[in-house]
Amino acid sequence: MISETELISWRRMFHKNPEIGFTEFWTTARICEYLNKLPNCKLLYGKRLYENFPEPELLKKWDDNIYKSAKEQYKDDEWIKKLNGRTGLIAVIKGKKEGPKVGFRVDIDGLPIEESNKASHIPFKKGFHSTNNNMHACAHDGHITIGLGLAKTLAENADESKGTFYIMFQPAEELLLGGKIFSKLSITKELDYFFPVHIGIPEERKIVCGSSYFADKRYNILFKGRSSHAGGSPEEGKNALLAACNAITGLYGISRHSGGSSRINIGAFTSNNASNVISDKAQFELDLRGETDEVCKYLKQQALNIINGASKMYDVENEIKFVADAETAVNSTELISIVRRACFDAGIEKNAIVDHSLDSGSEDATFIMNEVINSGGLATYIGIGSPTFGGFHNKQFDFDEDVLFQGVKILHKIAMIISERA
Amino acid sequence: MISETELISWRRMFHKNPEIGFTEFWTTARICEYLNKLPNCKLLYGKRLYENFPEPELLKKWDDNIYKSAKEQYKDDEWIKKLNGRTGLIAVIKGKKEGPKVGFRVDIDGLPIEESNKASHIPFKKGFHSTNNNMHACAHDGHITIGLGLAKTLAENADESKGTFYIMFQPAEELLLGGKIFSKLSITKELDYFFPVHIGIPEERKIVCGSSYFADKRYNILFKGRSSHAGGSPEEGKNALLAACNAITGLYGISRHSGGSSRINIGAFTSNNASNVISDKAQFELDLRGETDEVCKYLKQQALNIINGASKMYDVENEIKFVADAETAVNSTELISIVRRACFDAGIEKNAIVDHSLDSGSEDATFIMNEVINSGGLATYIGIGSPTFGGFHNKQFDFDEDVLFQGVKILHKIAMIISERA
Amino acid sequence: MISETELISWRRMFHKNPEIGFTEFWTTARICEYLNKLPNCKLLYGKRLYENFPEPELLKKWDDNIYKSAKEQYKDDEWIKKLNGRTGLIAVIKGKKEGPKVGFRVDIDGLPIEESNKASHIPFKKGFHSTNNNMHACAHDGHITIGLGLAKTLAENADESKGTFYIMFQPAEELLLGGKIFSKLSITKELDYFFPVHIGIPEERKIVCGSSYFADKRYNILFKGRSSHAGGSPEEGKNALLAACNAITGLYGISRHSGGSSRINIGAFTSNNASNVISDKAQFELDLRGETDEVCKYLKQQALNIINGASKMYDVENEIKFVADAETAVNSTELISIVRRACFDAGIEKNAIVDHSLDSGSEDATFIMNEVINSGGLATYIGIGSPTFGGFHNKQFDFDEDVLFQGVKILHKIAMIISERA
Amino acid sequence: MISETELISWRRMFHKNPEIGFTEFWTTARICEYLNKLPNCKLLYGKRLYENFPEPELLKKWDDNIYKSAKEQYKDDEWIKKLNGRTGLIAVIKGKKEGPKVGFRVDIDGLPIEESNKASHIPFKKGFHSTNNNMHACAHDGHITIGLGLAKTLAENADESKGTFYIMFQPAEELLLGGKIFSKLSITKELDYFFPVHIGIPEERKIVCGSSYFADKRYNILFKGRSSHAGGSPEEGKNALLAACNAITGLYGISRHSGGSSRINIGAFTSNNASNVISDKAQFELDLRGETDEVCKYLKQQALNIINGASKMYDVENEIKFVADAETAVNSTELISIVRRACFDAGIEKNAIVDHSLDSGSEDATFIMNEVINSGGLATYIGIGSPTFGGFHNKQFDFDEDVLFQGVKILHKIAMIISERA
Repeated sequence: MISETELISWRRMFHKNPEIGFTEFWTTARICEYLNKLPNCKLLYGKRLYENFPEPELLKKWDDNIYKSAKEQYKDDEWIKKLNGRTGLIAVIKGKKEGPKVGFRVDIDGLPIEESNKASHIPFKKGFHSTNNNMHACAHDGHITIGLGLAKTLAENADESKGTFYIMFQPAEELLLGGKIFSKLSITKELDYFFPVHIGIPEERKIVCGSSYFADKRYNILFKGRSSHAGGSPEEGKNALLAACNAITGLYGISRHSGGSSRINIGAFTSNNASNVISDKAQFELDLRGETDEVCKYLKQQALNIINGASKMYDVENEIKFVADAETAVNSTELISIVRRACFDAGIEKNAIVDHSLDSGSEDATFIMNEVINSGGLATYIGIGSPTFGGFHNKQFDFDEDVLFQGVKILHKIAMIISERA
Repeated sequence: MISETELISWRRMFHKNPEIGFTEFWTTARICEYLNKLPNCKLLYGKRLYENFPEPELLKKWDDNIYKSAKEQYKDDEWIKKLNGRTGLIAVIKGKKEGPKVGFRVDIDGLPIEESNKASHIPFKKGFHSTNNNMHACAHDGHITIGLGLAKTLAENADESKGTFYIMFQPAEELLLGGKIFSKLSITKELDYFFPVHIGIPEERKIVCGSSYFADKRYNILFKGRSSHAGGSPEEGKNALLAACNAITGLYGISRHSGGSSRINIGAFTSNNASNVISDKAQFELDLRGETDEVCKYLKQQALNIINGASKMYDVENEIKFVADAETAVNSTELISIVRRACFDAGIEKNAIVDHSLDSGSEDATFIMNEVINSGGLATYIGIGSPTFGGFHNKQFDFDEDVLFQGVKILHKIAMIISERA
Repeated sequence: MISETELISWRRMFHKNPEIGFTEFWTTARICEYLNKLPNCKLLYGKRLYENFPEPELLKKWDDNIYKSAKEQYKDDEWIKKLNGRTGLIAVIKGKKEGPKVGFRVDIDGLPIEESNKASHIPFKKGFHSTNNNMHACAHDGHITIGLGLAKTLAENADESKGTFYIMFQPAEELLLGGKIFSKLSITKELDYFFPVHIGIPEERKIVCGSSYFADKRYNILFKGRSSHAGGSPEEGKNALLAACNAITGLYGISRHSGGSSRINIGAFTSNNASNVISDKAQFELDLRGETDEVCKYLKQQALNIINGASKMYDVENEIKFVADAETAVNSTELISIVRRACFDAGIEKNAIVDHSLDSGSEDATFIMNEVINSGGLATYIGIGSPTFGGFHNKQFDFDEDVLFQGVKILHKIAMIISERA
Repeated sequence: MISETELISWRRMFHKNPEIGFTEFWTTARICEYLNKLPNCKLLYGKRLYENFPEPELLKKWDDNIYKSAKEQYKDDEWIKKLNGRTGLIAVIKGKKEGPKVGFRVDIDGLPIEESNKASHIPFKKGFHSTNNNMHACAHDGHITIGLGLAKTLAENADESKGTFYIMFQPAEELLLGGKIFSKLSITKELDYFFPVHIGIPEERKIVCGSSYFADKRYNILFKGRSSHAGGSPEEGKNALLAACNAITGLYGISRHSGGSSRINIGAFTSNNASNVISDKAQFELDLRGETDEVCKYLKQQALNIINGASKMYDVENEIKFVADAETAVNSTELISIVRRACFDAGIEKNAIVDHSLDSGSEDATFIMNEVINSGGLATYIGIGSPTFGGFHNKQFDFDEDVLFQGVKILHKIAMIISERA
């Protein structure tokens, strides 16, 4: 079995170099490099992973120039060269005997947040804080680590197991795009069991056997007005910035819905005009979440009204581009008892194991879950609780590293129970 | 005398390569290169212009890295190398006999506006549109041209004139900073006469002997909140973006003032947060103008209330940094008749000559004017009217090039009248 | 037992003359008039109900002038005269033998909504729509009717029952004030069982044995600025209306809370200034609800920030006055099975009986519930489902009158079960 | 000649009982009562004034119920009975000989502002403050007084004068409606000279021979949404109040116009919904003013965009009703010298007499002026300066009563000069 020290050192290595969605070249390379040394472990990455992909336009999210820069930055990195411009990978570990196909999903991308350099922030204090402008502020560094630990444990013990295990290192979860891409891989349809996982949720040391997530819809909004001299002829301008500000205060004010909770947020706002020029262009990203698909659709309809109304108010035009979404998914009740049993086997106390919980975040693993379930498989989303600090998506985010070892144990137990039952 | 063809070719050359304030290295180099070939013309630029500058911190506006890039981009450009990291210059042309010191000011910077590529836009149609992301959308390309034409005319006829002529090619007018810097040059205090000039105002073919401008105050506003997961714990965030949007709708709504007209505008708005993260930082630039200093102060007080109030609303903090300002200036009535006479001499019809007008734009030449006047000299701001297209600061801005030749003629006649009277 | 026809005729009579909170003089009089004819039924109203009231200032909500007007309007109404300026009453029905004290609560006030006069609106079509500017748009006319029906049934069968039954006809529920007042009556502390009831929730024909409600806080907000001539000296005004509008858009935009659902609403906005005068006074009512007390407190804190920030923005002052609140209450699980059994006895199908539900409205019966429970009694809030039309608090609201008879039956069965068990 | 004491006592009497536009029954009655005692003075009021009125729908502004109430309130007031439901009057004073027709206009209505009861407010301190909810906060009490004083002086000296003098006591100036009505009277077309007058402008002791006013447009705006239970089903509501608040912050933010100054204000905002009901109706009055008719039209177009856009944002409907407007008017230059001369005759120092000024308020006397001028007459608007306190339209407004006597003198001198020249 893997050692806690090893897990912690991995986590800290990944924490130091976070990469945002579709740019995880270094991260993918490091995962490949490590896994490649394991016995019984086959890697699918780059061309091998994405060839014959049914919806090629989804693959356009990776940018050739960014890949080129990465290759320049890491000139001697043989693994980056092999990636062929794509991030993410799947480790395939075959047991000695035939058996079910069991998938686990961990996500690998960071967030565009500058990490705290406060003395009280442990990654900074201990010297493993981010060395770039991004940050692992959602524990994906921990997920990678658990994926590696699980892969190692399964690979080294492949002789004892039945079935095939797929450790899916998914890119671009924060963008809600990597999950959709992975859901289209031919492997996904063939999975008999599928377990996405998140650590730090709940924030106590409890395990949730079946976490549910909000539906999510993301859009890019662009307002297009007309510039003019802000002093000399302000009346000739059509103020795109003002329309956008008005839309934003309106969007946050969309009414609550009695059918379930909702979330609204705006990010990445820019209007580049000089201050003596009326703004002719302003854009932002809009993120809408609903406890149910109905609530999410309601938010979308209200948002369209608000954006179109704000355009009308200032006589500007707009473009609304769909960016990404996430579905809700229903956990397979058949798996709850398996996860419960695995936790128990892993030494978790009974009353620390929870069947269900609802998380107001969103997850694109739901696309994979729904694909597995629609193809006749079973899926449940596992939450491995642990104390966190600073709050998710905050620049002071951190988590108790004890969860890493526990995470590997629980997932490995799940694999073993399924393997034994086969 | 200069030819119209030559003037037009200069204007189009400068139009193709606009540079924003404090980055006008190529522009300054081209002006130097040309003027250097003239007889009787001494150039003050780089070290020679800015040495012993009384307020050194004002010179920090030029960025060494930008200068470095410029030198790399134009590797063989000897003139750029000589600039010593500073833009702008003064051409000094001595007449045969001693006499008054007469200054003219033209500004040389462009704006961060992407130029139109519509077929109807003449610079595009005729192939002299901007080749970068900036644009001469305020006729400063015309001003440079008139400055060159005036310098050539004065230089070639220096034998006939009394006094010394200073053609000041001022940087960073759009930022309201170059004028303040030029006002601190020791030359400024010594000027007996000073004439800043703008073309295209009025938009008809009239000449204004004394244009007045609005007072102006510009600030950088930064809101600092706290990020959190927009789905998982939105209540833990303190939304800097929302505070900024609210402040902006409030700022545009500052009440009109019965003491005079006002202008309010916002530019350069950014909030970089990912859409699934509550914004912890949002910033923008604020531009406030008033017909009088009192109105401008009123705007500032209201703006402070609004910004501080918006911070309070969303429990975020803010920083308000002064960026630039422009004063109002009173044109010396003694000069009105000189300009009027010069126009007449230049062939302008009597009823096309206007004594005064008020422009709701702002001008940092007012700093130089006030310095000249306070030191015992005289100054008046000249508006050389001509048809314009698309509106100032609009991506379709253009002007009738006839104004170039006329501008040179009028300014030269002014120089001659003063010279003769001496 | 009561007849359906009688119940429907009562409901329609009350529907025609809705009275808002603390003005229900005619309504109280009619209830008294009817109940007074019943055997075994003692009435507590006016002086008898409110004497020795422990918090006299709560009784100031009734306005002497309104009572005076009511007496003038209904000159020959002996019952109104007896009310002594107070609305609401309790019918006390003693069973033959000693036994537990069992309370039921129905509320009697209407809303300031003008009822629809569309042909499709049944109260209008059948001629029993409101004859004044108010409306029974929350089914309290149905509640009164059920209260009357229950009282009659209990009174006529008092010989067969053990214990004392208190049918509480509570005023001013929509104002969240009548419940607090009734909770302070000495009778409340003595109740062994307490059952508040609402019809139409759920909107299907189901019965909820224990409904939970949101916590609620209501405030009056007043902004005080300075008036000035909107044309002549707008800058001298301090615009209270603009501050209020800004606060309102801010209030609706208070962030969602991951700890539970929330609701925000604003009503009764007025600013009386003439349009050529800058507003010096603007006021509105604010209603904040949270699924938990914590969420409700969070809303309050955010609202204070927003209101104070908006004041600061426009340099105006504000006053924030507490108006009313409602607590959350926990239904006594011991009573769920009793209600379930009563429903079953009343002929409701098993799968139409629901143990719990959460309603995002608020209820001041929670004050009475908490008082009863804190004094050692048991309480649960009963929802008697039925189809409704037009939506609660909408001018087209209506409900299926079948629920009236069913409501009486269920409540009577509850009384009987408790009586028998005693 | 009239005495200062008498003027002051009149002013104070009218100050105590201000009546808003179209309700000035008591005020009109008192003016009639006084003027009726004068020699050579004929009164046109009620039926006699408004019969054969060319646009009868304009007369619908007077409300029969308000007239009825006024008659009840002042039961023994014979003059109110004679008014026939209309306010305003014209005093016609015929000189001994035939001559020109000379009109003077004073306005008589108050504002819906509650007067200050601060000790420092002189009307309060001296006990002549308003006894109702309205206030003479724009000096119309002074105008009435000057009108009475002028009438008395002209009437008592009619033997000495040539021509006919019309002292027009116009109602509803604050509503911008009385002037339009008076402009349609057949008398207006016949006037050879017309002088509307305002005191307190400028606020110093200067006289303006020709004041100009802003164009003005006023609208009633109604937003119509859909109510729903704010707790139970907020998503079913369409929030008219929120749309209105958003429109208002947008309206105040309409861009300044380089063609001239502008003013925007909102008043009389109401939304009557209970705080637990989503607002289905919100309304306000909008007042738009521009230095030129073009600016005023620009404001209107922007306002329409904003109102329609805000409706779209919240999916509500709106109604925009025109209420009133005021034109700009050009003072007849021929009259400037007459007013100047009259001031001089009245003892005003030369340098206290100003030919022109621009006031950013609005005036419906412009309708009468334009009608007179279009019919071949001459007109100029006279401003009789004096110190004021608290600001126009403020609850502490007051003016220096010295202006009353001076006002009568100047207007009488004007009448005499015209009379003599005839």
